[in-house]
Amino acid sequence: MEAMIYLDNSATTKPFPEVIDSFVAVATNYFANPSSLHGLGMKAERLLAQAREQIAAMLRVKPNEIVFTSGGTEANNFAIKGVAWQYQRRGRHIITTKIEHPSVAEPCRQLEELGFEVTYLPVDREGRVSVEQVERALRDDTILVSVMHVNNEVGTVQPIEEIGALLSRYPKTLFHVDRVQGISKVPLDLKQAGVDLCTISAHKFHGLRGAGLLYVREGVRLAPLIAGGGQERQLRSGTENVAAIVAMAKALRLALERYERDIGRLQALKDEWLEALLAIPDIEINTPRDGAAPHIINFSLKRGVKPEVFVHELEKSGIYVSTTSACSSKKKAPSKTLLAMGLGEDRAERGIRISLSFDNSREEIAPAVAAIKQAIKTLSEVTE
Amino acid sequence: MEAMIYLDNSATTKPFPEVIDSFVAVATNYFANPSSLHGLGMKAERLLAQAREQIAAMLRVKPNEIVFTSGGTEANNFAIKGVAWQYQRRGRHIITTKIEHPSVAEPCRQLEELGFEVTYLPVDREGRVSVEQVERALRDDTILVSVMHVNNEVGTVQPIEEIGALLSRYPKTLFHVDRVQGISKVPLDLKQAGVDLCTISAHKFHGLRGAGLLYVREGVRLAPLIAGGGQERQLRSGTENVAAIVAMAKALRLALERYERDIGRLQALKDEWLEALLAIPDIEINTPRDGAAPHIINFSLKRGVKPEVFVHELEKSGIYVSTTSACSSKKKAPSKTLLAMGLGEDRAERGIRISLSFDNSREEIAPAVAAIKQAIKTLSEVTE
Repeated sequence: MEAMIYLDNSATTKPFPEVIDSFVAVATNYFANPSSLHGLGMKAERLLAQAREQIAAMLRVKPNEIVFTSGGTEANNFAIKGVAWQYQRRGRHIITTKIEHPSVAEPCRQLEELGFEVTYLPVDREGRVSVEQVERALRDDTILVSVMHVNNEVGTVQPIEEIGALLSRYPKTLFHVDRVQGISKVPLDLKQAGVDLCTISAHKFHGLRGAGLLYVREGVRLAPLIAGGGQERQLRSGTENVAAIVAMAKALRLALERYERDIGRLQALKDEWLEALLAIPDIEINTPRDGAAPHIINFSLKRGVKPEVFVHELEKSGIYVSTTSACSSKKKAPSKTLLAMGLGEDRAERGIRISLSFDNSREEIAPAVAAIKQAIKTLSEVTE
Repeated sequence: MEAMIYLDNSATTKPFPEVIDSFVAVATNYFANPSSLHGLGMKAERLLAQAREQIAAMLRVKPNEIVFTSGGTEANNFAIKGVAWQYQRRGRHIITTKIEHPSVAEPCRQLEELGFEVTYLPVDREGRVSVEQVERALRDDTILVSVMHVNNEVGTVQPIEEIGALLSRYPKTLFHVDRVQGISKVPLDLKQAGVDLCTISAHKFHGLRGAGLLYVREGVRLAPLIAGGGQERQLRSGTENVAAIVAMAKALRLALERYERDIGRLQALKDEWLEALLAIPDIEINTPRDGAAPHIINFSLKRGVKPEVFVHELEKSGIYVSTTSACSSKKKAPSKTLLAMGLGEDRAERGIRISLSFDNSREEIAPAVAAIKQAIKTLSEVTE
């Protein structure tokens, strides 16, 4: 088998080996229920508390502002439905954007069915929402604004700090940020940006599936999405997945260390990728030149080349890319983000996403780009 | 360190080593997102489909009737809220019991706040609900009956088959069973019993935290609790925790094999435990003699011995038991199940639970019972 070139890191990342080691050590030696009164339970609880403190320190928030969840999708559902049910008497209007991940868009749609009103803000040609649009959409009964940090399809960074500054003047409107694609790639100070709720998922930074978190600013109340035994300060019940949480703390530390050491290299890698892709006449780059994350490149294939066929063709050379987001890839619908950017249905149907991690290297570019060119050539001949 | 005698298996079980091995193999070699179009994603998806088929076969249901969740608490919340939101136009009345796990009781309480009506059925002196009571509570607007299979505090088996037979005459009322404590210990044929929704959690049968499932009978519709990318046939979104799900399939197979081989031994073990405990004058057994699961024994300490202090005292001898359920153990409230059984607040405040697994042995009984006697003696002297 030839070497794999994995370029689908926004779908999921390969867990760091040390992260798996941590998981195994905890699952084996500290298996007890952290809610159990006895010493085994207390040991598990201490590990959990430690992981919470470590993660809080890395995110520069307080330990009691971290609510562990089963992942990003749960955290997004919890943030949106939790605000909706908690504050429904205050108002029933929510503002979000047209380019959110389905785990934000779908809960909003569900709430619409239950009598809430949702404003979906448009984005500009670069896939960016403007703070002016948020301001214009705000109403007396707006209880929540939910805007993602880094778009998962094209990588555009949203003006979170500016929106946060605006919303600091609207204390009755909470601010949720889906930071699943941004963490360890694009800095964001949650406190300075005035974020009230923030979603993070472990498996996007080489942690394991089954762990994520919602940052819940002190003072913000939420109706629990998953109620029961009262774990996580009554906000998220269920026996805590201590092993996956400890593994997430380790993954975050390692990922942030990689950021410190390698962010310049990752940015340069992306620039080099962009340069190589720009030299291919048959594709159009959709990711904006400026204000985009250092790990996502989206481009559209020329007419006649089907993106799903292209993905399989590239795979023959051991190169793994995706069409739109992983969640949407099997639906064969046009990319929602590309459509919202006004690039047209046709171009939105032919999107390909390359998503890097700190493990990717320069050496991959030449063979991958050669394979991309060859795949386009092969598939064009088939259809012409 | 002396040998550990772990008697808190209803809180959580020690994962089987083979289960951890499976997890590691999948997390390492099949890390891709099962929703990704490319071959790595397809391999992960195949593993997921395989695990689903294996589990469905073991539960004697169809693969498309399995919805994977992050665990039992999520599955219980999903069943209850999913029915409530899906069928609220049909009715807003729910029937459950006074002895359910908090992950059933709390969602019911939340729904009451949102305008639903909930009937909490009493239980008899043995902790058992009667089918007549269910029948009397049924109304035209009853959309759901939720009754646990095996009570988590005292082990009483509920008349699921009888309730299912009754409800087969009420096609508009769905039947949910929390089978978290029953699986691999007390047989239950979901199809024959007419169960519509059934909750199972991996870490109660030596699987890993982070995986559970809700059986959703074909034809039953549910509003998703966690919406998004549309995984699990639109019913539960979020990147599937393939490694933990494959590990759950393995744990279930091993646990059911242990059941086949060892259920007689486990029952005999429990009987021997009961006999030894009955010989201690200072305690009162709360678990009924008949119609109880083979792995749970609940007893109340005599007045003056604080259960939480008793737990710590026993722990000095390497013996791990719990007060009530793990979730409730830190609240120091009287046991809800013992109260509902009519045993009085005083006795309900002094409950101790021993919960066995197939890994426990006869050899543990003598030293554990000696330690129990000694602990009672020591703590009585302190307080007298």
